[in-house]
Amino acid sequence: MNSTLPPLSRLAVDRAVAAALAEDLGRAGDITSNATIPAHDKARAFIAVRRDGTIAGLAFCESAFRQVDPATRFTARVADGTAVTAGSVIAEIEGPARPILSAERVALNFLGHLSGIATATAAYVARVAHTEAKICCTRKTTPGLRAFEKYAVRCGGGTNHRFGLDDAVLIKDNHIAAVGDIAETIRRARAAVGHLVKIEVEVDTLDQLRAALAAGPDAVLLDNMAPETLRQAVEIVAGRAATEASGGVSLDTVAAIAETGVDMISVGAITHSAPVLDIGLDFV
Amino acid sequence: MNSTLPPLSRLAVDRAVAAALAEDLGRAGDITSNATIPAHDKARAFIAVRRDGTIAGLAFCESAFRQVDPATRFTARVADGTAVTAGSVIAEIEGPARPILSAERVALNFLGHLSGIATATAAYVARVAHTEAKICCTRKTTPGLRAFEKYAVRCGGGTNHRFGLDDAVLIKDNHIAAVGDIAETIRRARAAVGHLVKIEVEVDTLDQLRAALAAGPDAVLLDNMAPETLRQAVEIVAGRAATEASGGVSLDTVAAIAETGVDMISVGAITHSAPVLDIGLDFV
Amino acid sequence: MNSTLPPLSRLAVDRAVAAALAEDLGRAGDITSNATIPAHDKARAFIAVRRDGTIAGLAFCESAFRQVDPATRFTARVADGTAVTAGSVIAEIEGPARPILSAERVALNFLGHLSGIATATAAYVARVAHTEAKICCTRKTTPGLRAFEKYAVRCGGGTNHRFGLDDAVLIKDNHIAAVGDIAETIRRARAAVGHLVKIEVEVDTLDQLRAALAAGPDAVLLDNMAPETLRQAVEIVAGRAATEASGGVSLDTVAAIAETGVDMISVGAITHSAPVLDIGLDFV
Amino acid sequence: MNSTLPPLSRLAVDRAVAAALAEDLGRAGDITSNATIPAHDKARAFIAVRRDGTIAGLAFCESAFRQVDPATRFTARVADGTAVTAGSVIAEIEGPARPILSAERVALNFLGHLSGIATATAAYVARVAHTEAKICCTRKTTPGLRAFEKYAVRCGGGTNHRFGLDDAVLIKDNHIAAVGDIAETIRRARAAVGHLVKIEVEVDTLDQLRAALAAGPDAVLLDNMAPETLRQAVEIVAGRAATEASGGVSLDTVAAIAETGVDMISVGAITHSAPVLDIGLDFV
Amino acid sequence: MNSTLPPLSRLAVDRAVAAALAEDLGRAGDITSNATIPAHDKARAFIAVRRDGTIAGLAFCESAFRQVDPATRFTARVADGTAVTAGSVIAEIEGPARPILSAERVALNFLGHLSGIATATAAYVARVAHTEAKICCTRKTTPGLRAFEKYAVRCGGGTNHRFGLDDAVLIKDNHIAAVGDIAETIRRARAAVGHLVKIEVEVDTLDQLRAALAAGPDAVLLDNMAPETLRQAVEIVAGRAATEASGGVSLDTVAAIAETGVDMISVGAITHSAPVLDIGLDFV
Amino acid sequence: MNSTLPPLSRLAVDRAVAAALAEDLGRAGDITSNATIPAHDKARAFIAVRRDGTIAGLAFCESAFRQVDPATRFTARVADGTAVTAGSVIAEIEGPARPILSAERVALNFLGHLSGIATATAAYVARVAHTEAKICCTRKTTPGLRAFEKYAVRCGGGTNHRFGLDDAVLIKDNHIAAVGDIAETIRRARAAVGHLVKIEVEVDTLDQLRAALAAGPDAVLLDNMAPETLRQAVEIVAGRAATEASGGVSLDTVAAIAETGVDMISVGAITHSAPVLDIGLDFV
Repeated sequence: MNSTLPPLSRLAVDRAVAAALAEDLGRAGDITSNATIPAHDKARAFIAVRRDGTIAGLAFCESAFRQVDPATRFTARVADGTAVTAGSVIAEIEGPARPILSAERVALNFLGHLSGIATATAAYVARVAHTEAKICCTRKTTPGLRAFEKYAVRCGGGTNHRFGLDDAVLIKDNHIAAVGDIAETIRRARAAVGHLVKIEVEVDTLDQLRAALAAGPDAVLLDNMAPETLRQAVEIVAGRAATEASGGVSLDTVAAIAETGVDMISVGAITHSAPVLDIGLDFV
Repeated sequence: MNSTLPPLSRLAVDRAVAAALAEDLGRAGDITSNATIPAHDKARAFIAVRRDGTIAGLAFCESAFRQVDPATRFTARVADGTAVTAGSVIAEIEGPARPILSAERVALNFLGHLSGIATATAAYVARVAHTEAKICCTRKTTPGLRAFEKYAVRCGGGTNHRFGLDDAVLIKDNHIAAVGDIAETIRRARAAVGHLVKIEVEVDTLDQLRAALAAGPDAVLLDNMAPETLRQAVEIVAGRAATEASGGVSLDTVAAIAETGVDMISVGAITHSAPVLDIGLDFV
Repeated sequence: MNSTLPPLSRLAVDRAVAAALAEDLGRAGDITSNATIPAHDKARAFIAVRRDGTIAGLAFCESAFRQVDPATRFTARVADGTAVTAGSVIAEIEGPARPILSAERVALNFLGHLSGIATATAAYVARVAHTEAKICCTRKTTPGLRAFEKYAVRCGGGTNHRFGLDDAVLIKDNHIAAVGDIAETIRRARAAVGHLVKIEVEVDTLDQLRAALAAGPDAVLLDNMAPETLRQAVEIVAGRAATEASGGVSLDTVAAIAETGVDMISVGAITHSAPVLDIGLDFV
Repeated sequence: MNSTLPPLSRLAVDRAVAAALAEDLGRAGDITSNATIPAHDKARAFIAVRRDGTIAGLAFCESAFRQVDPATRFTARVADGTAVTAGSVIAEIEGPARPILSAERVALNFLGHLSGIATATAAYVARVAHTEAKICCTRKTTPGLRAFEKYAVRCGGGTNHRFGLDDAVLIKDNHIAAVGDIAETIRRARAAVGHLVKIEVEVDTLDQLRAALAAGPDAVLLDNMAPETLRQAVEIVAGRAATEASGGVSLDTVAAIAETGVDMISVGAITHSAPVLDIGLDFV
Repeated sequence: MNSTLPPLSRLAVDRAVAAALAEDLGRAGDITSNATIPAHDKARAFIAVRRDGTIAGLAFCESAFRQVDPATRFTARVADGTAVTAGSVIAEIEGPARPILSAERVALNFLGHLSGIATATAAYVARVAHTEAKICCTRKTTPGLRAFEKYAVRCGGGTNHRFGLDDAVLIKDNHIAAVGDIAETIRRARAAVGHLVKIEVEVDTLDQLRAALAAGPDAVLLDNMAPETLRQAVEIVAGRAATEASGGVSLDTVAAIAETGVDMISVGAITHSAPVLDIGLDFV
Repeated sequence: MNSTLPPLSRLAVDRAVAAALAEDLGRAGDITSNATIPAHDKARAFIAVRRDGTIAGLAFCESAFRQVDPATRFTARVADGTAVTAGSVIAEIEGPARPILSAERVALNFLGHLSGIATATAAYVARVAHTEAKICCTRKTTPGLRAFEKYAVRCGGGTNHRFGLDDAVLIKDNHIAAVGDIAETIRRARAAVGHLVKIEVEVDTLDQLRAALAAGPDAVLLDNMAPETLRQAVEIVAGRAATEASGGVSLDTVAAIAETGVDMISVGAITHSAPVLDIGLDFV
């Protein structure tokens, strides 16, 4: 459990959960539970993980049950960011039986999805633990869920890249091509943005890297370079900019990449292709 | 390409894409492209798949480029539902360079995510092609994207289960426990819902199955049964209800399950754990 | 009072009421009460029906008063679905006087509209009580209020038809004309939709009915048939599909239609033309 | 046709129609038409009234078809406010067949509801045509549709009362009771509101009327007075305020009320209890 | 402090504050406080004015802190409409330290903006206190904040003009030009609107004024007239309509304008150009 | 005119304008124009500035007229960022007369407000033109309009500070107090945020400045320092961080502050207290 984990915005969580509930309840609501469960039946249920993993998204569960019925009571037994083993009970929920069943799927869909991302991130983080390298995410996220997925990456021990097109400059090949010169591209960006905006530039070769460094970027994205080239790149940069490796990163290759001395390794797969963490709700 | 594929609602697509663009453009927009690409630069780009797969979500691409700038022109070269090979160009886009870059990530995030689901579905469908069994999805979908993900399942050759808690009855163990008798549970549901609502009931054993059939459900969900048990279940049902198998389904096991004669095999993984299909945009 | 009535979604009710309050309070709010009622005045009021009828929509009242001021306290004396006589007090409200007056009209507009529908439905239901036929609604509902109006139909003892175009197939003449053959139309629909979607087909003649039955629809809509024809139709169907009569239904004709043996009689008027139930709020 | 009828806000109409389409199309859209009508089929259809009435709401039809598919073309043959006879074709629609069917019900639900209000209003207006009295609406409107229903009242030849609690002062018994004196209540309201806000006061007796007039209200609401009392009230007012009669108004009583010389007769029933005008769409 | 000040709608305030919080918290929230303030730190803070002024908008502060964290407790020490001197503490806030810091800027942005308007209004009101003239606002307000700004005008002792284009008629030169005759323009407006809508007409000359009065407007807007002309205008009107002066109004000229006997002086600057009132939050 | 000015998001502009139009048109729309201007009247109008200033917000005008009626045609004669003199025509609008009048106020409210900010910014920028210092904005913006106001600052030649709490770290006294040590506070922030997030720290004294620099912040905010102290601060920093001066900045003092060599001078007044630029619309 990571005690310094920043909190999610209650407002943002409630809004996302309300939309998901509307999506699942549709026009007529939970017709099965309403037809079969007596209105005053009470229930108690455990939320348990079926596989080892790292938890993220408990606030969404709490919100789902509360929004369907404020009379339900949700208690988390662990905090987001906790690594748990298969079978662990991570939360319990108590109250009227109908709303527990009606909110169950939405609660678990958020929790499983975000915990899946935290778990995938933690796997990469574990592989590079013997180095200084950090695992970071990309903008390859699920539409509508970016801030939550980036939060899950932090729960898994990763760090965050840009949140959008607006909070940092990332100069890529098409931008450089339009200007015609890498250092000039960086200078134009510097002139256009405020003093609290960082500038990163993507380079494919060591020559490009040297040209870029002349304009003083805050970070360089070393794209699709072999470990040996990465090592040289880190040497060339010599601390003048943060270094990020991307491309060809997998659980098999990430340790070798981290050992080159890069500061950051970005992995799209931890957000766009992480399988769900299998989590279930069981009535007591 | 599947010519009978139902169209996506233009209104729903535009709304989802607008939200995703707001998420990515943030408050300040694409500061990199705005700072470096001259306002009047034109560009032409191809959207190409990097791996074999089945396409779903081209309407989201079209919408993303159009909404950022109506002066862009998007042309799909294939239709949703088409199986393509690595390297295929599936669409092209032409117009002012800035908006093409600003919309790129949102367009590809939708396309990659939905095509990933279509591709995963198609893999399962291929394994059961020698049988009558259909592959269907579940309610284990990404919050906010359910209708689109279910569309992607159809693009991959699958069929859809319930869209929400409100459009069909699915009686599970907790519902039966609350009533105390499986046939009575089905009867209560029948009495409560309209004449156009189907009723499915989940059973774990053949005894439960026999008890359920007495009340005439429209479908039975045979949960976590071994192939041999499934075969007996199909025999017992004898066409009186649709049969659905779930639990323990993987690419390795699905053919054996299909060969038992069940009508439907539901697979949560095709929506909740499908890796993205790798798709990129390349300037010409 | 109908104790098995499914609950309305608190989220959906609150959202609809918030919109109606915004519509009534406009930009400047309740300028009359604010100008004339001292801020700390308290009040107690009764909500009473002026005519006999069936109640639906008390949750909207509760929501209206609560949203305008959480310090108000609303207590229902009956439950939705209760038949009451003119003069009955059905709820009371206590708290600061201003918000009670400011929320009054919105509360009563919902309550009167939905109770009007419940009352109209109950009148039809009473006429067919000696038969097995059920009264059901249509998609001819007030824009924006469909789910609530269908709930009111249930409060009045009716049952629900489709909630929208998406939750069941209803094949009409234009669909059949496009395909050219009624049985083939049904088969195409069957192939396109999931296993939990029912298929109903509209027929105008007994020949059409026989042709349709060959393809095994779940229900047949017998449109604008005279009672004698309906009786023959029920005989032809012989339990192979649910039977629904529509067209020419009024309080005067409904009993004769029900006596033909049809399962369902759909009446657009109970939602699209039900007069409001006269309900008022009186300060004590 | 009423050529001075104010236009509806295109923005407001589009927003209401989009919500109604979402309500009807649900998550999966028009599954019947998508399964049975070939994608490229074209159609042409007429919108015709089945009974005599006055039309209101053609802009909603146009919007519904356009929003579902911009390739459809809607042409109105009459304008809102036109009185038509049973059988009249009031609009036609041409384009792809699927979207015409998918938008049909939403288009007709708006058109039938608003035309029903216009028709009911026109009936009252006709009964008082030999007097100077105007028929006006109330705040007893359907939640979410107030502005549109008030527009329909104008289409029927009526005039509008307040649009909400915020645009005029209407002092009722509870306000007077809180202050303790009718003239003082009017003065407090006058002091509190801007110079462009009118003040109307409800009175039940001629004594109350005289007391109210002392404070110079802009209008007086003569509630539940018999025609003879109304006549005396009009005499007492003597042009110093607008006079409005309410309570006990029906098609049978309205002429006698109008003949008392009141300026305005308000009728809740024209908005809250008007039956729909029966309008259908027929393929050519 | 003005004890008769109408309350702001809690719903409207919460909605506006939620939007402003989303604008400030963005996707990642208050990253500074989350990184540096321990989660369980408590704090107490005062909100104090740095300059003399009139307060408006305390409900927005309360809403901002509550929405970020319901565990914070906000206590106002004065009421909206109170004139305070530099250094006065007007509210205090207590609770977890993080949310106090995260909500601070939004709370102060509303409070400073609205108090700035109240303060500007109060300055004008003070200059005309020896007359009967009232200071009123215009429709020249900040987009999205009109109702709140008009409330702030009332807090400053001013009165409100129209809230929008829909709640009163204001005939200007272009309207008159389209009709061709000022009295006829007024008559057309009278015929078109309900009996609770007032009609004001803008005139530039005394001749125009006389022509307008013939049609009995409720108010006349005397635009850009010198004090001497205004005096004559007031004499001509002779109580038959409310009189409003506009144009060329400043703190220097307003007293002379008020002394002409006009009822109302409208000032755009109090909403569109009022500087913020400097208000700060200080931790104890 | 500033040809490199980044474009505003069309989506964001349209959304803000739609909300402002709803606010102004209310429920009943522009009742004055609808009652008096014949439906088919055409008009042509100029938008002209009444005072010298710098233009910002033309896209909002275009959007307002287009949204009210797509048949209007708006043509800008200058671009945002252009300095113009009193009397200049900056745009013209042609089309049906009614929608031009109905959209006028919303169009001008945006244009006047944003141009007021651009004009205020340009005044500060002019005073420091002989130095390298840039004028930048703060988070003291009008709720709901931040991104647009920051855009207007750029139109006036200024540069942007943070857009929200989430896109850069700004450590203030309360954060330092919670941690107890300025350098440690910076290090904690560095550890918590991604590699593309800059860190600025506010210091009040030169000793604090020296302590902060030890932890390598990206920028230092020199708060309320006299010019001589600022000069020393710049010397101490010696290029190791960007320097920003704030506090006590006015048109009178800004030049002296800029001459100390600071990189940035932040001015809250350019967004929170800029008077509107007087702009009018005149029919031809």
